[in-house]
Amino acid sequence: MSTIKPQTAILLLYCPDKAGIVSAVTGFISVNKGNILYLDQHVDSVDKILFMRIEWDLTEFIIPKEKINEYFQTLYAQKYGMYFRLYFNDCKPRMALFVSGMSHCLFDILARYTANEWFVEIPLIISNHSSLQEVAKRFGIAFHVFPITPENKIEQETRQLALMHELRINFIVLARYMQIVSENFISHYPHRIINIHHSFLPAFVGAKPYHAAYERGVKLIGATSHYVTSDLDAGPIIEQDITRISHKDSVNDLIHKGQDLEKIVLSRAIEKHIERKILTYKNKTIIFG
Amino acid sequence: MSTIKPQTAILLLYCPDKAGIVSAVTGFISVNKGNILYLDQHVDSVDKILFMRIEWDLTEFIIPKEKINEYFQTLYAQKYGMYFRLYFNDCKPRMALFVSGMSHCLFDILARYTANEWFVEIPLIISNHSSLQEVAKRFGIAFHVFPITPENKIEQETRQLALMHELRINFIVLARYMQIVSENFISHYPHRIINIHHSFLPAFVGAKPYHAAYERGVKLIGATSHYVTSDLDAGPIIEQDITRISHKDSVNDLIHKGQDLEKIVLSRAIEKHIERKILTYKNKTIIFG
Amino acid sequence: MSTIKPQTAILLLYCPDKAGIVSAVTGFISVNKGNILYLDQHVDSVDKILFMRIEWDLTEFIIPKEKINEYFQTLYAQKYGMYFRLYFNDCKPRMALFVSGMSHCLFDILARYTANEWFVEIPLIISNHSSLQEVAKRFGIAFHVFPITPENKIEQETRQLALMHELRINFIVLARYMQIVSENFISHYPHRIINIHHSFLPAFVGAKPYHAAYERGVKLIGATSHYVTSDLDAGPIIEQDITRISHKDSVNDLIHKGQDLEKIVLSRAIEKHIERKILTYKNKTIIFG
Amino acid sequence: MSTIKPQTAILLLYCPDKAGIVSAVTGFISVNKGNILYLDQHVDSVDKILFMRIEWDLTEFIIPKEKINEYFQTLYAQKYGMYFRLYFNDCKPRMALFVSGMSHCLFDILARYTANEWFVEIPLIISNHSSLQEVAKRFGIAFHVFPITPENKIEQETRQLALMHELRINFIVLARYMQIVSENFISHYPHRIINIHHSFLPAFVGAKPYHAAYERGVKLIGATSHYVTSDLDAGPIIEQDITRISHKDSVNDLIHKGQDLEKIVLSRAIEKHIERKILTYKNKTIIFG
Repeated sequence: MSTIKPQTAILLLYCPDKAGIVSAVTGFISVNKGNILYLDQHVDSVDKILFMRIEWDLTEFIIPKEKINEYFQTLYAQKYGMYFRLYFNDCKPRMALFVSGMSHCLFDILARYTANEWFVEIPLIISNHSSLQEVAKRFGIAFHVFPITPENKIEQETRQLALMHELRINFIVLARYMQIVSENFISHYPHRIINIHHSFLPAFVGAKPYHAAYERGVKLIGATSHYVTSDLDAGPIIEQDITRISHKDSVNDLIHKGQDLEKIVLSRAIEKHIERKILTYKNKTIIFG
Repeated sequence: MSTIKPQTAILLLYCPDKAGIVSAVTGFISVNKGNILYLDQHVDSVDKILFMRIEWDLTEFIIPKEKINEYFQTLYAQKYGMYFRLYFNDCKPRMALFVSGMSHCLFDILARYTANEWFVEIPLIISNHSSLQEVAKRFGIAFHVFPITPENKIEQETRQLALMHELRINFIVLARYMQIVSENFISHYPHRIINIHHSFLPAFVGAKPYHAAYERGVKLIGATSHYVTSDLDAGPIIEQDITRISHKDSVNDLIHKGQDLEKIVLSRAIEKHIERKILTYKNKTIIFG
Repeated sequence: MSTIKPQTAILLLYCPDKAGIVSAVTGFISVNKGNILYLDQHVDSVDKILFMRIEWDLTEFIIPKEKINEYFQTLYAQKYGMYFRLYFNDCKPRMALFVSGMSHCLFDILARYTANEWFVEIPLIISNHSSLQEVAKRFGIAFHVFPITPENKIEQETRQLALMHELRINFIVLARYMQIVSENFISHYPHRIINIHHSFLPAFVGAKPYHAAYERGVKLIGATSHYVTSDLDAGPIIEQDITRISHKDSVNDLIHKGQDLEKIVLSRAIEKHIERKILTYKNKTIIFG
Repeated sequence: MSTIKPQTAILLLYCPDKAGIVSAVTGFISVNKGNILYLDQHVDSVDKILFMRIEWDLTEFIIPKEKINEYFQTLYAQKYGMYFRLYFNDCKPRMALFVSGMSHCLFDILARYTANEWFVEIPLIISNHSSLQEVAKRFGIAFHVFPITPENKIEQETRQLALMHELRINFIVLARYMQIVSENFISHYPHRIINIHHSFLPAFVGAKPYHAAYERGVKLIGATSHYVTSDLDAGPIIEQDITRISHKDSVNDLIHKGQDLEKIVLSRAIEKHIERKILTYKNKTIIFG
């Protein structure tokens, strides 16, 4: 939901927990005339790791925007052994959409895009066949077909990567894209490829999860959005949800009911990513509120 | 979910409960060589009313399709004091869509329509202003603007009704249409106008329910689809759902989170209506599974 | 919820689907002056199997109660190849409770029992140690301790079975009983032992599912009640539910939040079983409404 | 879930938002050698109010425990216009339970209490009649009957208050207590009386909400726990949840299904209160995670 906001900086970080870190970071901002708009922190009491998301108003901040990263690195990140990322709320992320034959996630994303629900740019849609070309056209978005065979996969991925590089793509959404992307491909967008899997992971990994759910006789079906890693359907989970089914539902009913889940669960994950509310650590996500 | 199905008849009925009715109706079908594919019945034990939905394969049914209504009326409906409706699964219902400025429900409906998810025809979209004209155009559906003022309302509704009559519209969906339709208008489509209200009815009837929910400090927000009656937001409820919110959510966050609810709750109601799974009785719905 | 009801018969059945079965069964009841209070049927369109639950008022039924089973067997079950079970609503099922150290499910069950929420008799509680003896005492229920070691397991199960036989136990509830029961034990109560597993099956089968859920970083945790079969945690699922968790939740938080799920999901399954609303077929349940 | 924790202080506060407050409060703790274990803050961007909950390890904190309140008041609360409350994690709150005839909430609370799930003391149960005396006895808790009539209400409340004063009761839980408590009574425990209302407030305020829900034909029923204020069922909402119902459910079914909701929703609210995770502001709650 866009509302008029001042220019802000968003800092996501984690580091070994130690007394004084929150005070140090908030002090850095306050002393330099930044006004904290949001702060959430979490301590993993098993691993003794502190996670933090902090957003502050830059209007009167005395450190120039382009110097904040360097100053923070020098003054705090080194000292506390921090992993951190700094974002600015006026920098619009650029997203590539990968699809195959099913349209429900694509429509849900493009409807939000058209309604300016998200602060994001979608310069292109990539597909392994042309069936959704017409949809892309309706929304006026470039649509590129890269047919994939076992033989040409690496070559096609190289071309996809080049195209995305040229268009300065920040992250990728696999909106029911029915191809497994290679380890090399993933390595170009580590924890920046969001996939939707049509089951309640880790149940029903892999192909045909609704068929498997039907066979098992579950009473709830689910959908899971996660960052893609080289382990199939095993990357950090961002969001999950479920819906109730019954013995009356056929496999087709599961597929049908699941589509509403899939599109909502995927869109929620995209939104969290766009809003820079996600940190990944040890194959899990920390999602700030 | 469309799968290849034989031609079927669907009978929805209610009547005072009496021993032997289920046996009589199933006997009527069996004796005449219909194969029952679905039967669900429910007895309201307070009012002693029997509700039933029964669907049977017409392939070998010996009563001609166009005579079934008359035979059933003569042989059973009179005898048992039944209210009933007979449908055929190959008759595609025709739906009119009413919208105003918000696009989320419209997109959700048109995405399903485009993907042939529903067995329905949408010959037109009506709006009180032109802001969503572009969306309708993308999907190739006729879009008619009827600006409404207190002065021209009756006249405009008359024109809308004429247009819908001409296009043989069976039912109407108000997809966040921000006008109250008149009693006369409703009387042309009794229990055939589906509205989505953006609250968990009967809480927060009327305008600005998200603002009211925010003021009250609820922990869940809801959406309700219902048939329109002359009492504002008080018609038979078809479907409701909720989502969790917290003190962190502003009114804008509620509006944003609520949109996903609204579109899903509205689309579920439309689907039940299209599938002839709804009976209304005493300002309530019986929804067959 | 007990309300004053007439004496009824409940028939649960399945058989190969054929035209005329519903009509035949309802005819059998109507002709013999039974009044159908409930009928629900479902056709598995893949396997072409008809499932039915039908309940009728016996007040004026002309076939004597003790003859119904035989008549139905002779007249219909043989003809249509039916599997069926006949129950009477005035026959109170007798349930054995198995527990170990955790009290939450036990309390939930005994609270309902004490409040007469269920039409059931609980003549005994069996445990592998004595820690919950005090709870049983408070509710005035016999508590038997059978310590289990790898060496004495078969012997102890034999004694448990003898005790349950003596007390005419109809079905068993494992209310967080931390022992795996043997195949022989199960064979005495086929599809009549209800277990609660503290995960969303089939995810996290076996021991320590909350630890596994924590490791995987899921965003929802679940609980599953199912009939025990000789495959661990793989029997027919009766009921499942989930609750939302976040990165803030430790393993202990999952265990804690899961307990509310477990007790409710187990109690819902027990209730469905007591009300004779469950049929099992091909390792799945059909749950009538 | 109790785990071994160091002694901690918990500070809940709100005040007009201003730059530097988070930094000041965290600085106060860090400088004095407290280690922050938890911090959550929220800014109401409409009213410009900052809400904060902060918990820190007192092991090496250099300000004596009994002086913290005074120091914080002098150094920060006055300066920033803060409302604040300071708690210590080793101070066990004392809770009075009020009940009438229904046992489900009572059992749920006492089961948790017996299992040491909560860090709370329950010195007494008060009721307006004796029907649940037996339950209290089983759990070994003092049970006091105060029959209420319009004539003796004020007098009985005075005696209840005296008894609770004597037993140093910190907060009260109305666990389906079927009496409306007076404004005077409430004034002794402002925002410290938790009630469970058996509807999704603000729908169905007052008596017989399940009957009203049945009449209206809703598809979901709810339960709401809230702090009692002098406006009936209109106090700050702590927790809500819902469950799905259908046209098949009678009023008795709603009552039955609602009981599971009521007990869980009430117990969640009690837990949040015991853990000092709730702030109230303007008839709403801020619930920290």
